Amino acid sequence: MTNKKPLILVTNDDGYQAKGIRALIDSVVGLGEIVVLAPDGPRSGMSSAITSVHPLRYSLLSKDESKDLSIYTCTGTPVDCIKLAINELLDRKPDLVVSGINHGSNSAIAVVYSGTMGAAIEGCIFGIPSIGFSIDNHSANANFDETAKIARIISQQVLQDGLPEGVCLNVNVPNTSSVKGIKICHQTKGKWIKEFERSKDGAKREVFWLTGEFSNTEPENEHTDEWALTHEFAAVVPVKIDMTAYDTITSLKGWEKLY
Amino acid sequence: MTNKKPLILVTNDDGYQAKGIRALIDSVVGLGEIVVLAPDGPRSGMSSAITSVHPLRYSLLSKDESKDLSIYTCTGTPVDCIKLAINELLDRKPDLVVSGINHGSNSAIAVVYSGTMGAAIEGCIFGIPSIGFSIDNHSANANFDETAKIARIISQQVLQDGLPEGVCLNVNVPNTSSVKGIKICHQTKGKWIKEFERSKDGAKREVFWLTGEFSNTEPENEHTDEWALTHEFAAVVPVKIDMTAYDTITSLKGWEKLY
Repeated sequence: MTNKKPLILVTNDDGYQAKGIRALIDSVVGLGEIVVLAPDGPRSGMSSAITSVHPLRYSLLSKDESKDLSIYTCTGTPVDCIKLAINELLDRKPDLVVSGINHGSNSAIAVVYSGTMGAAIEGCIFGIPSIGFSIDNHSANANFDETAKIARIISQQVLQDGLPEGVCLNVNVPNTSSVKGIKICHQTKGKWIKEFERSKDGAKREVFWLTGEFSNTEPENEHTDEWALTHEFAAVVPVKIDMTAYDTITSLKGWEKLY
Repeated sequence: MTNKKPLILVTNDDGYQAKGIRALIDSVVGLGEIVVLAPDGPRSGMSSAITSVHPLRYSLLSKDESKDLSIYTCTGTPVDCIKLAINELLDRKPDLVVSGINHGSNSAIAVVYSGTMGAAIEGCIFGIPSIGFSIDNHSANANFDETAKIARIISQQVLQDGLPEGVCLNVNVPNTSSVKGIKICHQTKGKWIKEFERSKDGAKREVFWLTGEFSNTEPENEHTDEWALTHEFAAVVPVKIDMTAYDTITSLKGWEKLY
């Protein structure tokens, strides 16, 4: 048995230059050996997308031995980063995957579209305790101080306790300098509405820009991640990689006679 | 109240020219008014990715009044197609969303990466009964006869009965001319291994091509979608859009004291 430090793999979906990933890296320095493999530019909204029609490349950006920190960039998606790191770059399995800190919340149904959470889900598929962190502020220059503190505390706890098999964490932090506490929540029910802005391109042809606002169907439910954020709590949602709706299997069994 | 035919929205992730979507369109002709809004080229492995950094466009490709069928193409992802259709193209909410028929199975953890299922999940987020169909054959020229028959039967059933709120279907059909029947299944546990092929680009620099094989951790479990496919049954997995691991919330409650 070797007595190695924990290995922590870091990625995000805003790209290696984002302020959020710099804050996340700083928050885990000292907890182990840190390897960053992050996209070479923004990959927001990439969900669990993978790249199969193009080849992938990665390259070393910097090493800082005083922090036991190596930073690599990759041409792929957040999930590609996790796959490349674990299959090709690292010589041992990470003890923790952390993704973010995303510029913008990934609460409620946004978990489905989030590249930040795509990376955390991918770590979880590999059987590694994995966490996605986001702040409820889209600004490139958001203040990550509180979120980074919470990221360090939760990362330490997960390194110590692990997570249940097949479960990763979606952590969203409100945009405030004094977070009131942590709430363990479920994914808020709701959907996005008014999703496009019509515009014209240079040749006066109609184009559509994705935008929209979240319509919350359970705004008063204090067990939801949206409630937590609105009330200045950090929201921790445990997320399953098994998407099966087990409670509907029995009711659908009759359909086995259809063919 | 108008007495309109059901409105069926069709998309896929292999693009409008794929044989699979043509088979799916033919399978639902006659069940209602059919509107296709499909990507203008392949978007495999796009998961629930959305496009926010570029504008989206769509355009009419063809209309066939004898089949009550309109086909549009779109510059975006499968999820973008569903969002554009529902927000901008259609004048009423669809009664059914069908996606596919994907060239290649989306069983087990592949549901997470699948653009076919991304579209079905998106339909479900809008509250519309939604189904993704795939055949366990990646060939561009796969024989879709059996899968199309099953797609029609299941589509009819879903039009008649609906689906539980927040649940869509992931239907995978084996590559055989005589499917033995339908099994209602859960998502097989397992992961992908040996995921990259190392190669060189034109300048002799190392590149990585995504590939891999599925390692099934419950191969003898007859309630899994992989078992069904291996035994020549069509696998129907009900898929939840709420990814919360509810059964772990209580065990994590203690973490609320961390901050």
